[in-house]
Amino acid sequence: MMTEAAKGRILLSVTGFNPQRWHELLSVRREVVLEPQTPSDPSIHYAVVWKQKPHALSNLPNLRAVFSIGAGVDHLFSDPGLPDVPIVRVVAENLAQHMTEYVCWRVLDHHRQGLLHRQQQKRRIWREPAQPAADAVSVGIMGLGNLGRAAARALLMLGFRVNGWSRTGTTMEGVACFGGKEGLEPFLRATDMLVVLLPLTPATTGVVNFELLSKLRRDNALGGAVLINAGRGRLQKDADIARALDEGVLKEASLDVFETEPLPKTSPLWTHEKVFVTPHAAATSDPTHLAGPMLDQMDACDRGETLENLVDRSAGY
Amino acid sequence: MMTEAAKGRILLSVTGFNPQRWHELLSVRREVVLEPQTPSDPSIHYAVVWKQKPHALSNLPNLRAVFSIGAGVDHLFSDPGLPDVPIVRVVAENLAQHMTEYVCWRVLDHHRQGLLHRQQQKRRIWREPAQPAADAVSVGIMGLGNLGRAAARALLMLGFRVNGWSRTGTTMEGVACFGGKEGLEPFLRATDMLVVLLPLTPATTGVVNFELLSKLRRDNALGGAVLINAGRGRLQKDADIARALDEGVLKEASLDVFETEPLPKTSPLWTHEKVFVTPHAAATSDPTHLAGPMLDQMDACDRGETLENLVDRSAGY
Repeated sequence: MMTEAAKGRILLSVTGFNPQRWHELLSVRREVVLEPQTPSDPSIHYAVVWKQKPHALSNLPNLRAVFSIGAGVDHLFSDPGLPDVPIVRVVAENLAQHMTEYVCWRVLDHHRQGLLHRQQQKRRIWREPAQPAADAVSVGIMGLGNLGRAAARALLMLGFRVNGWSRTGTTMEGVACFGGKEGLEPFLRATDMLVVLLPLTPATTGVVNFELLSKLRRDNALGGAVLINAGRGRLQKDADIARALDEGVLKEASLDVFETEPLPKTSPLWTHEKVFVTPHAAATSDPTHLAGPMLDQMDACDRGETLENLVDRSAGY
Repeated sequence: MMTEAAKGRILLSVTGFNPQRWHELLSVRREVVLEPQTPSDPSIHYAVVWKQKPHALSNLPNLRAVFSIGAGVDHLFSDPGLPDVPIVRVVAENLAQHMTEYVCWRVLDHHRQGLLHRQQQKRRIWREPAQPAADAVSVGIMGLGNLGRAAARALLMLGFRVNGWSRTGTTMEGVACFGGKEGLEPFLRATDMLVVLLPLTPATTGVVNFELLSKLRRDNALGGAVLINAGRGRLQKDADIARALDEGVLKEASLDVFETEPLPKTSPLWTHEKVFVTPHAAATSDPTHLAGPMLDQMDACDRGETLENLVDRSAGY
């Protein structure tokens, strides 16, 4: 084993939150810097980033790989100075479990009529609403990657029917799978509750718009179609969602992400009675669980082994 | 096979709701009456009941078995004229699935801080709260019968730690099981979120009181102890729950059942901000799924076969 001094340094380049905990945990096994010591610092071999400053990674001659904090990597690609080195996404049991909790929580709250029950309680109304069983409801998951598949497994176990849509037509046992552009409309027509877990790429930006929402099945056991977006805000058109709710195209929505974050105080989604807002909190990357595996991958890369969970640059995720 | 005419009749004796749907579905294979034709009507071989009128079953000479609509049978035993014939409980996949939905829904809503998120949304606050993972939370299920075990399986799959308590000390894989009076305190001390699915018997009446609640673990990842009662209202002391919430012994509660139902308009639980009220709607017996198996059991009984899911009268459930 190399001594710590011999290992390349990590550049930790983060905006939007305090990376102190990441700094502590990565420092256990490598030296970590928040800025290169010189613009072309040769001691930096790896970068760990979340929305890095543009060109922060441009001139590092010995950079071997970039590690994204988070399952999505769209934040990386907005940097015009992103160098041509391998990019590694977070794929972790812990992250998938958090997302599964969020998806099951929101699906069950819509399915079991949480909004109606809260309204009845406020008015002290004791009245049992008609309640369909889970197997009368089809949940459609857009995006069948690591997170989408984990959520699908849990929803199947809870008794829901599950549809899945992916760009490539991935299949999964127990899930009615649809793929590509031609599969999108049949997928939507068979879906009562839409869960969006797509990566954000040029091809998916704004895909959750009024036209897409209007194809969901609304003559169903729930009494309407439901949207749950836990992917990225720029997948959706905020204004189209508000319109779809107001025109009855959607019955309710749970939104964890928004076109602009934090969600502006002026957004009508904050106060829309049919919308449940969370502050991009569905599944936060927890350094306690993620830093160790990242350090393991850096050591493996140093030994000449292949990196796992690499991003496909041509697909953008 | 016997012709329909030769089969004994069913007495459908129900108060509190309209049994029309049950009437229709049971009539498919046997004649159904809502009242005996004479006080000691010999044509009645089976009774299907929910809170039957006292003595409705007292004088039927050929009554072979009583079928309860619902998993609980406490409503039967309040009748002093209940005859000494076998009593059959509802045990159905459909009922267990509905209850599992309710339990997972409420556990996830407390775990994922639904109340806090709703309060933040109302004030347009964009702030991500600290969010423990499911495996940092111990859910304790009181009552490990058919419903409790189904809920435990789902909670394990969602990643929660699960404790179980039962009168007899039933064991279950993956669940830390406690039994009997001596097991109750250690069970409570290891539980962050208590789910009550006990049968109502003289021994369990009022068991969910202030003293019991005060033994739950409140120095935990959730920031307090949580109560979920989906069993029977008379298992709990409504006033003790309000007191426990007000004194910080409980953080939040989801209550589907109450000492008096419908919950009186004057109850402080209706408007308590930390209480989520549903109108005894966690898992309703659905005649579409339950009538067929009941008729099958009657036919089996006519053939001399043993009835399943019999109530143990000495235990009261």
